[in-house]
Amino acid sequence: MIAAQDKYPSRAGRAACLMPRLDPVVYAPGPQRQLTNLSDGQVAQYERDGYLVLHDVFSAGEVQCFKDELERLRRDPGMQARDEVITEPGSGDIRSIFRVHGISEVFRQLASDERLAGIAQGLLDDDVYIHQSRLNYKPGFRGKEFYWHSDFETWHVEDGMPAMRALSMSITLTENTLHNGPLMLMPGSHKSYAVCTGETPANHFRESLKKQEYGVPEDDLLEQLTGRKGIVSAVAKPGSVIIFDCNTMHGSSSNITPDPRSNAFFVYNAISNRVVQPFCDQSPRPEYIAAREHIEVIKAHTGPENYRGELQAV
Amino acid sequence: MIAAQDKYPSRAGRAACLMPRLDPVVYAPGPQRQLTNLSDGQVAQYERDGYLVLHDVFSAGEVQCFKDELERLRRDPGMQARDEVITEPGSGDIRSIFRVHGISEVFRQLASDERLAGIAQGLLDDDVYIHQSRLNYKPGFRGKEFYWHSDFETWHVEDGMPAMRALSMSITLTENTLHNGPLMLMPGSHKSYAVCTGETPANHFRESLKKQEYGVPEDDLLEQLTGRKGIVSAVAKPGSVIIFDCNTMHGSSSNITPDPRSNAFFVYNAISNRVVQPFCDQSPRPEYIAAREHIEVIKAHTGPENYRGELQAV
Repeated sequence: MIAAQDKYPSRAGRAACLMPRLDPVVYAPGPQRQLTNLSDGQVAQYERDGYLVLHDVFSAGEVQCFKDELERLRRDPGMQARDEVITEPGSGDIRSIFRVHGISEVFRQLASDERLAGIAQGLLDDDVYIHQSRLNYKPGFRGKEFYWHSDFETWHVEDGMPAMRALSMSITLTENTLHNGPLMLMPGSHKSYAVCTGETPANHFRESLKKQEYGVPEDDLLEQLTGRKGIVSAVAKPGSVIIFDCNTMHGSSSNITPDPRSNAFFVYNAISNRVVQPFCDQSPRPEYIAAREHIEVIKAHTGPENYRGELQAV
Repeated sequence: MIAAQDKYPSRAGRAACLMPRLDPVVYAPGPQRQLTNLSDGQVAQYERDGYLVLHDVFSAGEVQCFKDELERLRRDPGMQARDEVITEPGSGDIRSIFRVHGISEVFRQLASDERLAGIAQGLLDDDVYIHQSRLNYKPGFRGKEFYWHSDFETWHVEDGMPAMRALSMSITLTENTLHNGPLMLMPGSHKSYAVCTGETPANHFRESLKKQEYGVPEDDLLEQLTGRKGIVSAVAKPGSVIIFDCNTMHGSSSNITPDPRSNAFFVYNAISNRVVQPFCDQSPRPEYIAAREHIEVIKAHTGPENYRGELQAV
């Protein structure tokens, strides 16, 4: 049963088209904004392009702590069997670990670090919570591509996120070069909503986390969106933060280089934008992919003294 | 039966390793060299890195003529059934057309254009012929990756090319950007021969043209080779020429952008380096993949007046 009004209908037999975005990108009015780390220019750039790369946010020591924790989780024999763990098609290697802020104390604290959460609160002008978190490990040599998509389209249709008042932050744990399958984004694409064709099959999430087959934008729409400002690759050293709007079209190519591409990934949603029933006739996706029942408002904290490597998983 | 001495043994149960190259990269001694279009600096760069990008070699009009011919061939209903035509796994779209210098008069003339053939003769210091030619069409949205390989390893083992006295030229027909799966090369990799493990199955070529599974270098060797001078992407506007040595390690990532990546591709081999029996216990690959019986020495010709678009296929 679809209870709420659907501002952004997609799939369910509709024709593909670009419809205008109905929500702001930056919610806080200029002077009232409390964005401790962003300049006016950076906010304007985020509003215009739908993404922003912040370099050198985390120190080498902090990044090492995050990488140690990532390796610990990947080697933990108990992880493979968990629902939260997604493996590569073919090899079975761990590709992503979901709800990592619930599994690991290190990443729980990182999610509420003010260098991330403070910016999210500021841009969305609201208290925030983690809609989804994950560690992405794109291995060297055999890292698979991930096709173009707007996260919001999926979060709206399959999770019931009502409006575009959420954003993602990707914290780079390895160097993201031009060659190892970096995040590619279409600047300006967030100002339109790409309505997709098709429907949503039951339990779509099991396959879509490996390879998307529904909620995939039509070729023609992608051409229109790249026609605006082309495509950019988010190239960044470890310890950088790539912020992008929930509706920015993005994807990545395969990675055949020897260099893995690892990121921690947090989706901040405004508390006023909590999910309702999905905007399709399927059951909601599991809690570890889209927080629904267990919502915790982020209390942003300061200081790198938390990341010293001696933290344990909960 | 293996008749000739095998300077570069690979597969056939050998352990993976890097062995030194036993042949020159540039064959002609400095002063005697007849490289009308290359400076000493360019020749030195080619010798050192194993590749060279020449920009703006062909005019916009010439490129248009090549593209028109490519489109004509792709749409020719008779082409799909030809042995020379390789289709994408999955979609069935035409990905490559082999022996294109034998199929199309336009590309026959391009192969002997002195802006290409003259350089090949000069660097190899010999008369040359086309060992292999093809049109590569890497479609937008769904262009597949091609994994790291040395062409020479395959040409040696499967075709019986005795020595490293051959080079490839890729003529860009569309823009090769950082995003649409450009050719990636490992500079300096051509100075070592990556001995591969495994064997060569019968009729390997049928699958290897779509997806290589034998003659694939070990991870460890690729790490050693990228440790030299990293990885470069050959980014170029249409009408450029990417020259690379037969033993330069190269590959390409998938292409999810809307922009197809098309190239004409010619392999020039020194006439003194004609193929013998394959250096494995399989039959030679077909003539359209590796010229063996029908060898025509290139007579380099001048002038762009040949590419006016009114040429017909033979």
